[in-house]
Amino acid sequence: MKGKVQPKTLPGFMELLPNEQILFNKMKEIIQKSYEKYGFLPLDTPIIEDANVLLAKAGGETEKQIYKLKKGESDLALRFDLTVPLAKYVTEYYDKLSFPFKRYQIGKVYRGEKPQRGRYREFYQCDVDIIGDGELSIINDAEIPSIIYNTFKKLGFDDFTICINNRKILNGLFSSLELDDASSEILRIIDKIEKIGKDSVKKELLISIPEKKVDIIMKFLAIKGENEEKIQALESMEIDNETFKEGVEEIKEVSKFIKIFGVPKENYKIDLTIARGLDYYTGTVYETFLNQYKNLGSICSGGRYDNLAEYYTERKMPGVGISIGLSRLFFQLIDNNIISANEESIVDILIISMADDYEMCAKIAAKLREEDINVQINIEQQKLGKKFKYANNINARYVIIIGEDEIKNNVLTLKDMSSGEQNTVTLDETIKIVKKTKNKD
Amino acid sequence: MKGKVQPKTLPGFMELLPNEQILFNKMKEIIQKSYEKYGFLPLDTPIIEDANVLLAKAGGETEKQIYKLKKGESDLALRFDLTVPLAKYVTEYYDKLSFPFKRYQIGKVYRGEKPQRGRYREFYQCDVDIIGDGELSIINDAEIPSIIYNTFKKLGFDDFTICINNRKILNGLFSSLELDDASSEILRIIDKIEKIGKDSVKKELLISIPEKKVDIIMKFLAIKGENEEKIQALESMEIDNETFKEGVEEIKEVSKFIKIFGVPKENYKIDLTIARGLDYYTGTVYETFLNQYKNLGSICSGGRYDNLAEYYTERKMPGVGISIGLSRLFFQLIDNNIISANEESIVDILIISMADDYEMCAKIAAKLREEDINVQINIEQQKLGKKFKYANNINARYVIIIGEDEIKNNVLTLKDMSSGEQNTVTLDETIKIVKKTKNKD
Repeated sequence: MKGKVQPKTLPGFMELLPNEQILFNKMKEIIQKSYEKYGFLPLDTPIIEDANVLLAKAGGETEKQIYKLKKGESDLALRFDLTVPLAKYVTEYYDKLSFPFKRYQIGKVYRGEKPQRGRYREFYQCDVDIIGDGELSIINDAEIPSIIYNTFKKLGFDDFTICINNRKILNGLFSSLELDDASSEILRIIDKIEKIGKDSVKKELLISIPEKKVDIIMKFLAIKGENEEKIQALESMEIDNETFKEGVEEIKEVSKFIKIFGVPKENYKIDLTIARGLDYYTGTVYETFLNQYKNLGSICSGGRYDNLAEYYTERKMPGVGISIGLSRLFFQLIDNNIISANEESIVDILIISMADDYEMCAKIAAKLREEDINVQINIEQQKLGKKFKYANNINARYVIIIGEDEIKNNVLTLKDMSSGEQNTVTLDETIKIVKKTKNKD
Repeated sequence: MKGKVQPKTLPGFMELLPNEQILFNKMKEIIQKSYEKYGFLPLDTPIIEDANVLLAKAGGETEKQIYKLKKGESDLALRFDLTVPLAKYVTEYYDKLSFPFKRYQIGKVYRGEKPQRGRYREFYQCDVDIIGDGELSIINDAEIPSIIYNTFKKLGFDDFTICINNRKILNGLFSSLELDDASSEILRIIDKIEKIGKDSVKKELLISIPEKKVDIIMKFLAIKGENEEKIQALESMEIDNETFKEGVEEIKEVSKFIKIFGVPKENYKIDLTIARGLDYYTGTVYETFLNQYKNLGSICSGGRYDNLAEYYTERKMPGVGISIGLSRLFFQLIDNNIISANEESIVDILIISMADDYEMCAKIAAKLREEDINVQINIEQQKLGKKFKYANNINARYVIIIGEDEIKNNVLTLKDMSSGEQNTVTLDETIKIVKKTKNKD
């Protein structure tokens, strides 16, 4: 290609073929409608922000991954999550909002990570957060799993578990053992329990922690059973620490209300080992797993935080929220054949013209569209075989063929592309048939 | 705010309050559904592209406005429209697509223009394009105004006009007068005809063009009447130029089929003065005006181009498409009080708890959501007045109040927020009432 620029999408940037995009958009819409059912209001903050605003809180790994740019004198940056823009938003528009402020945002965020299979530099996050002004009832923490449950049900999943924990339990436990300073390190070790087993965890803990304390941690990690049994076990540990007690009270209240909000027992459980990062969350934390595909990791996570906007305001704004990383989730679901885009379509009917007279095509297309049927017409000079290949490529559900005979007799040839059945019908019959199929979806 | 970062959205970046965002999203969804009704398939290309790919075609003003960034060794840039990414896409995935390729894309684009009232640096474009492989029937050019018509009808507008012209007519005319080289300059002068009047246009043209030729141009500009009369007048000019003749044939075919596609006569007209920029379009061009708000400028524009991807491939890909600049349009419609977001809501019911027992709130919320009703609950420790202020702020349609009496008697107090009417009802009655209101929308 002499003198031409090679057109190439950047590595780490998801770009889908139309059929995949239809499925992706369908999932995005289900998530949106599901968030709206819980009364969350939409936001759409800019992708570019003032670098100082965006990086007020960042540091370490995050800061390295950020896309920065300059325009004139200004230092700009692309958002790397939807939480920092939310903190900016509630502080900036505080006087115009009512609290608790419930918002959802579905949008792209940017992280210049090393590109890996299934890891994107531009990816969608789908977030809901409830932000209180000064305080926020713990019942909100119980409503969140109900959102997760309903969203993934609507996405077509049944066999998933929402795992719930409370950071105060872990923090209180460590504090009661006078291990506050070691808590990050302990959590890091505990986090490996599924991978390396209990004994190895104990061995690692013993390197820097006295045996008596390690025994209490191991007793804590050994807590098993139904949610109620776990709560009882926590209470019977008789840890004399206010934070620990608060955490137990909170998880008790949350697990009571999750049930009332209608989440079936088999879809949630208390899991005392999950911690969700180290600094951000301060109370309830959530992770969600597809039981048959645990290797995918958590597909929806989040938690409670004490102070959303501390870098912008003295006002205390506690919040609780979750995020679905849709781009990565979509990739994983496709990659593991859990979902498939092969059948996806938005074209109900493709009208194929095999005559030189296109008036009937245009008229029929207009009539069908009035009936809310999605119609494409193909009036190009192509052979019938090529036109049917086209119909297959766009997954058209029906094809209408209009040739000389059809024009003469004012009828249509309607082909059902999934059954292959082909009939001569009137326009009214076509409308009825197609609408019937559409309503089945 | 000692030690705090001032949270501030960048100038030129649209950020809406929730009620406005609901209306914005509603318009975006109407446009999307309308594009899908014509069978256009969705695309969602990355916002960041390789700078060399994105700028293959750019130059001049556009290039200056582009947001460029570096990440590691790579020169990156943010897309400034959705057409260049489309050209990249059809070239990159040529083998996996079927042509004519019909796609829509609705997404943000970036131009670092000087911020002005109503001009944004980050803004939504809503594009449809039909891309042919080698050739593309002129009937497609007639389907486009039908898309414009149906989209703006669905958006709630009646009194608008789609203006159609064909660049070949103008180019052919200038060529027949041996004024090819002056054509940009002539178009620039003609473009001012509405503003400065015919006489001034003539005077300006006479500065550099012989009177005999100016007379022909003025005769052309004087063409008036219904579409058919204009076409006849063009034919009777007897311009001996192939391009001109082609243009007249094309506009004749387009205006015949626009009618067949169902666009009412009062919503389109041939306007021989519109040209839509100078380099890009090669055939049919479109502009759309709200007749009562012509000062807003064209609210939907586009046209036919010969060669979409010439910077990437030797393949000839003609196309035709339009774009709605939704962010700017939204701003203008709000600013001129043509639309208002005051009544917008997605919350059907706000449940307000006035008792310490929240179980009934949670139960009722779960039941209502099962019925596809959007429900928020407010269980915060706030006074009733504050909770109703909240209900007003989020434009909740109904409020359910649950106090000690309601819990005791297993009933609800339902308040219709628009009429102010308040009744004691059962849950089943509530569902019926709210669904009835919802279906009216």
